[in-house]
Amino acid sequence: MEKIKAAVVGSTGYAGEELVRILSNHKNVELKFLTSRSYKGQNFQDVYSNFNKVLDINLIEDDIETLSNEVDVIFLALPHGIASSKVTKETLGKTKIIDLGADFRLKSKTVYEKWYNVEHLGENLLDEAVYGLPEIYREEIKKTNLIANPGCYTTCSILSLYPLFKNNLIETNSVIIDAKSGVTGAGRSVSLGVHFSETNENIKAYKIASHRHTPEIEQELTNAIKKDVVIQFTPHLIPMNRGILTTSYLKLKDGFTFNDVKEAYFEQYKNEKFVRLLKDGIYPETKWVKGSNYIDIGLFFDRRTGNVIVQGAIDNLIKGASGQAVQNMNLTFGFDEIEGIKTAGIFPV
Amino acid sequence: MEKIKAAVVGSTGYAGEELVRILSNHKNVELKFLTSRSYKGQNFQDVYSNFNKVLDINLIEDDIETLSNEVDVIFLALPHGIASSKVTKETLGKTKIIDLGADFRLKSKTVYEKWYNVEHLGENLLDEAVYGLPEIYREEIKKTNLIANPGCYTTCSILSLYPLFKNNLIETNSVIIDAKSGVTGAGRSVSLGVHFSETNENIKAYKIASHRHTPEIEQELTNAIKKDVVIQFTPHLIPMNRGILTTSYLKLKDGFTFNDVKEAYFEQYKNEKFVRLLKDGIYPETKWVKGSNYIDIGLFFDRRTGNVIVQGAIDNLIKGASGQAVQNMNLTFGFDEIEGIKTAGIFPV
Amino acid sequence: MEKIKAAVVGSTGYAGEELVRILSNHKNVELKFLTSRSYKGQNFQDVYSNFNKVLDINLIEDDIETLSNEVDVIFLALPHGIASSKVTKETLGKTKIIDLGADFRLKSKTVYEKWYNVEHLGENLLDEAVYGLPEIYREEIKKTNLIANPGCYTTCSILSLYPLFKNNLIETNSVIIDAKSGVTGAGRSVSLGVHFSETNENIKAYKIASHRHTPEIEQELTNAIKKDVVIQFTPHLIPMNRGILTTSYLKLKDGFTFNDVKEAYFEQYKNEKFVRLLKDGIYPETKWVKGSNYIDIGLFFDRRTGNVIVQGAIDNLIKGASGQAVQNMNLTFGFDEIEGIKTAGIFPV
Amino acid sequence: MEKIKAAVVGSTGYAGEELVRILSNHKNVELKFLTSRSYKGQNFQDVYSNFNKVLDINLIEDDIETLSNEVDVIFLALPHGIASSKVTKETLGKTKIIDLGADFRLKSKTVYEKWYNVEHLGENLLDEAVYGLPEIYREEIKKTNLIANPGCYTTCSILSLYPLFKNNLIETNSVIIDAKSGVTGAGRSVSLGVHFSETNENIKAYKIASHRHTPEIEQELTNAIKKDVVIQFTPHLIPMNRGILTTSYLKLKDGFTFNDVKEAYFEQYKNEKFVRLLKDGIYPETKWVKGSNYIDIGLFFDRRTGNVIVQGAIDNLIKGASGQAVQNMNLTFGFDEIEGIKTAGIFPV
Repeated sequence: MEKIKAAVVGSTGYAGEELVRILSNHKNVELKFLTSRSYKGQNFQDVYSNFNKVLDINLIEDDIETLSNEVDVIFLALPHGIASSKVTKETLGKTKIIDLGADFRLKSKTVYEKWYNVEHLGENLLDEAVYGLPEIYREEIKKTNLIANPGCYTTCSILSLYPLFKNNLIETNSVIIDAKSGVTGAGRSVSLGVHFSETNENIKAYKIASHRHTPEIEQELTNAIKKDVVIQFTPHLIPMNRGILTTSYLKLKDGFTFNDVKEAYFEQYKNEKFVRLLKDGIYPETKWVKGSNYIDIGLFFDRRTGNVIVQGAIDNLIKGASGQAVQNMNLTFGFDEIEGIKTAGIFPV
Repeated sequence: MEKIKAAVVGSTGYAGEELVRILSNHKNVELKFLTSRSYKGQNFQDVYSNFNKVLDINLIEDDIETLSNEVDVIFLALPHGIASSKVTKETLGKTKIIDLGADFRLKSKTVYEKWYNVEHLGENLLDEAVYGLPEIYREEIKKTNLIANPGCYTTCSILSLYPLFKNNLIETNSVIIDAKSGVTGAGRSVSLGVHFSETNENIKAYKIASHRHTPEIEQELTNAIKKDVVIQFTPHLIPMNRGILTTSYLKLKDGFTFNDVKEAYFEQYKNEKFVRLLKDGIYPETKWVKGSNYIDIGLFFDRRTGNVIVQGAIDNLIKGASGQAVQNMNLTFGFDEIEGIKTAGIFPV
Repeated sequence: MEKIKAAVVGSTGYAGEELVRILSNHKNVELKFLTSRSYKGQNFQDVYSNFNKVLDINLIEDDIETLSNEVDVIFLALPHGIASSKVTKETLGKTKIIDLGADFRLKSKTVYEKWYNVEHLGENLLDEAVYGLPEIYREEIKKTNLIANPGCYTTCSILSLYPLFKNNLIETNSVIIDAKSGVTGAGRSVSLGVHFSETNENIKAYKIASHRHTPEIEQELTNAIKKDVVIQFTPHLIPMNRGILTTSYLKLKDGFTFNDVKEAYFEQYKNEKFVRLLKDGIYPETKWVKGSNYIDIGLFFDRRTGNVIVQGAIDNLIKGASGQAVQNMNLTFGFDEIEGIKTAGIFPV
Repeated sequence: MEKIKAAVVGSTGYAGEELVRILSNHKNVELKFLTSRSYKGQNFQDVYSNFNKVLDINLIEDDIETLSNEVDVIFLALPHGIASSKVTKETLGKTKIIDLGADFRLKSKTVYEKWYNVEHLGENLLDEAVYGLPEIYREEIKKTNLIANPGCYTTCSILSLYPLFKNNLIETNSVIIDAKSGVTGAGRSVSLGVHFSETNENIKAYKIASHRHTPEIEQELTNAIKKDVVIQFTPHLIPMNRGILTTSYLKLKDGFTFNDVKEAYFEQYKNEKFVRLLKDGIYPETKWVKGSNYIDIGLFFDRRTGNVIVQGAIDNLIKGASGQAVQNMNLTFGFDEIEGIKTAGIFPV
């Protein structure tokens, strides 16, 4: 079978490197180019020694225009603000773009600029961009050339809450998402905030009421329920490498029961390959999804308070970034949706 | 200065051992007896080698009646159900009891029996028992012979939320406490749930809507606001040894501002030695309280949702158990309230 | 392509589970039976939730005789003493056995019984058994029906030292192997020794001068240099899940240089797929091999002391157990040696 | 009792901060000045929030000459090369200096300059400097004004090996010290090497055959045995915050027995307050010394190899730095040697 050619721009961040790992095992993909501003000129395996004897590619500087002539798909793993200034309609005429960054996720230029505090230079592409959550936008993803791959907190939050909103089962003014993330979510840049001795044996919240994944979650939940949703989103940093757990609290609407909730999830996800609804009373744990593209979802109900409590667990670098990007690639190129990402998680690791 | 004599019953659990450490440095205390069912006959330092060359006491079987003739204070660090069956009015006539367990915390026998699923055998002592949260019951603690030392989640939750309820600033039907605890909170007993390879690099919730600290928190918040409070309490297990962080969400009542909130906390705690209100925008982190008796409290407000978000951080074995027990002892014997527990936390550790 | 049928006996320990993960992705293998004494009757995915939606097999009790009629290969992941009492010449006439336990590794019944303190009941099979280190016994492995898969410390120690002994470059009375292992090496059974709060943030040695992997290492190094080798082997427990690092110290023989050492390693391993000799000055780190079947080897020389210092790093559950078992299976069935185990490690995880 | 006045220069590194913690609890000390180049002008508690409500001191720039007029003792916690250029005979006429850095530890300017690769500017003070290991130089420490506090690896190595050399029990050409350290040993500066996700779940060696603590250990062991000692020293980085474990290997000389070894240790340390010789068969673990000034020493002998294996465990920031500095201060000012550092370690933490 002929393989498509792929490039990863920004391959030496954690999401980029995880993407390289998955793509290098993907039977339909030839990995042609890896770029890195920090390490250009070096071999990828000198930056990530786990690829020693596995992958032998030199890192080049990124030039999206040139790459678009050479490959069938370009993955972008870049800080926000760059993709929207580099990708053009012309690029999209020549190659597909799967952007792991934030630039094309929000449909509103205004909202983007408010939360990200930079001008959005690619407004003319926002219509073409499809929000890359396959469980919701599978058909649209198949047809587009520009996929805006969701953030890690976002994927976990939206997928774990979507059926409640889609089916109008909860009060929309009561949504609280308390999220906990491993440290890889903070990236590979060095700072006191990710120093081992400052992070190990510690838990803290950050960006309460101001995290940039908030509007992304609100956009998608609003789309689902067809009215404005405002959420409370609180991220915490946990002393572990990988994994996100979200614990969400919502008031069940009068007239509905916990059974309605469970049925809504079952209906929504019964055919999904990467969504696992846990049995009654089983709590999602990040260890069971680590190294895999699965999201585990647990549903709970408290009769005393009337709250539905929903938990989602994902591997932030896989279903929260690179695995989902490959799932999107599979869809948009017509490959088997699970190709390259079908394995069980690895445990204990 | 003459010293009081003390006994620790159940000294070889983690809370018991931490209590021994604090008491062995306390200038007003002579540690006379340590008991342990699992290790009786052995020396305490053979169970906890950190006490090698520091403390030389043989572990005896517990017999509260006999001990009550010998010492001025008995600390109980026992599983629930035992203290209420062993302590009597006669005991309390001879010695003071500081119970780190659950038996005398709930004022209602019915509520206790519902959540703990055992018969309460010491109902006649519930009136004498004082809930051992010095910041709220300081005067009562000074006068009693039976102190019911609060649980770890409870201390952190109540202290971090009390001013909101005391001052009637929030909607009482909206209280969500999302708590995260280190693994020492689960005790020293072995099980797959505390196996290193199952716990490390993982986060999970447990006992959603059913944790036994729930009614304790509700009791005290109800007392504060003088109307029935029902809370949503969710504990999580975090891969670290010590520390609890609670993140609580409450709707601010119409007519109040975030400034009202901050003032209420300032007024409540301005003279407290062990409560630290953090500056605006500073997040509590468990690392800053580890090894100390402090609670750090951070206050946040989200204009978009109208939620007050409150975080509390404590060392679960100190302010959440043994340090607070010593604080109570100091009060009830008329020592300086901070004696033995006045040090800064130890960091990084 | 037709697939061979495989059974894993003892599939619910950590090595067994990792083996199931690798085999379930192996294109030449149909996983037919999984056994477990502790969990028989349950589904494998109820014991290891990472296999939810991936693998649907019920755990049965082990009966090697029956299994031998049904499958082409049986992997044994059992405590020592069992395999040697259950496997017979008749079994080996019907199926291949790859034993991840200790019973067939030592060629001397006497040595086995001295170190393991049990009678060896399968002495008549010791001749047929091949020590399953493909880098040394590749041709023998291809021909046998009974493969004794080496231990984790052993694999790392022997492979990292073999060229020094094979080429007679070092003084044999000076061998010190200081080994460090993650906690999965201790297995899944619960005990205070693997309690999170007792293991986390701690390092300790164990079984100094008495660890059972010692005679296995000595046997193979003795074979290499053709004279008796006695080693000093010290294992340590490190607060991490996976990985072994060995740091070995040996006196270079007079007349040889560090270049001779480097050449010996290059010659020995230049065609090996799973041995990575690191560049000068690069230290092996367990993070780079985690999740892979590689061993990374670093060579150092101290002019001041005349010592060669060799470090090896492996994933104890893969190259130190299950990955190597699959490598052996590939060889003995004529599959591509790297099939199912060719991927890069996963990082950071 | 009157208190001495103390200054800590370089108070915002981990050793400096731990020193501040100990001194702030020391009954004979008034902490007058804290200096910091990175944080001058800020309050110490803004850098280390564990000191919130405990200590209220503004950080000033360091000026050793000025400080020497104000205080009785100056602790220096600085990178190497600074102390030797700033301290003068005049300084030492006015105050005592306890230097936690490397500048005055090595008696030979040549050796210092070879290993540290900078010129030594304070050669005229090397005679006055006393190597601050109280268990060996107690009397000299009492009399000097310049104490060169040993390094962390050094303290653990020397104290755990000293009796073997002092009593000439081992072959001096066979000394191997395999050391394992927590990450605080690497300091608070940020780099990829201490990034949480690069350090967690990983072990590696560093500076094989080239670590700067090597000559310090050799100097003291040479002094003990009165002939030149060359050692093999290998440090490893372990994923935990605090603690050092050294595992040392030495050949017992012909004619001596393991009993001779045990007696030598007993004789050397029987009156030492901070040295704990563990019972036969007990392994030192860093968790038992964490938070304390103790060194735990375990002795082992392998009849098969003739090796004595000695393990030492310390808290690298206490007995390996700040606790020992206070022990030295106590001695040189005539306080009780254990004042301020007499507590048991804190566990589990």
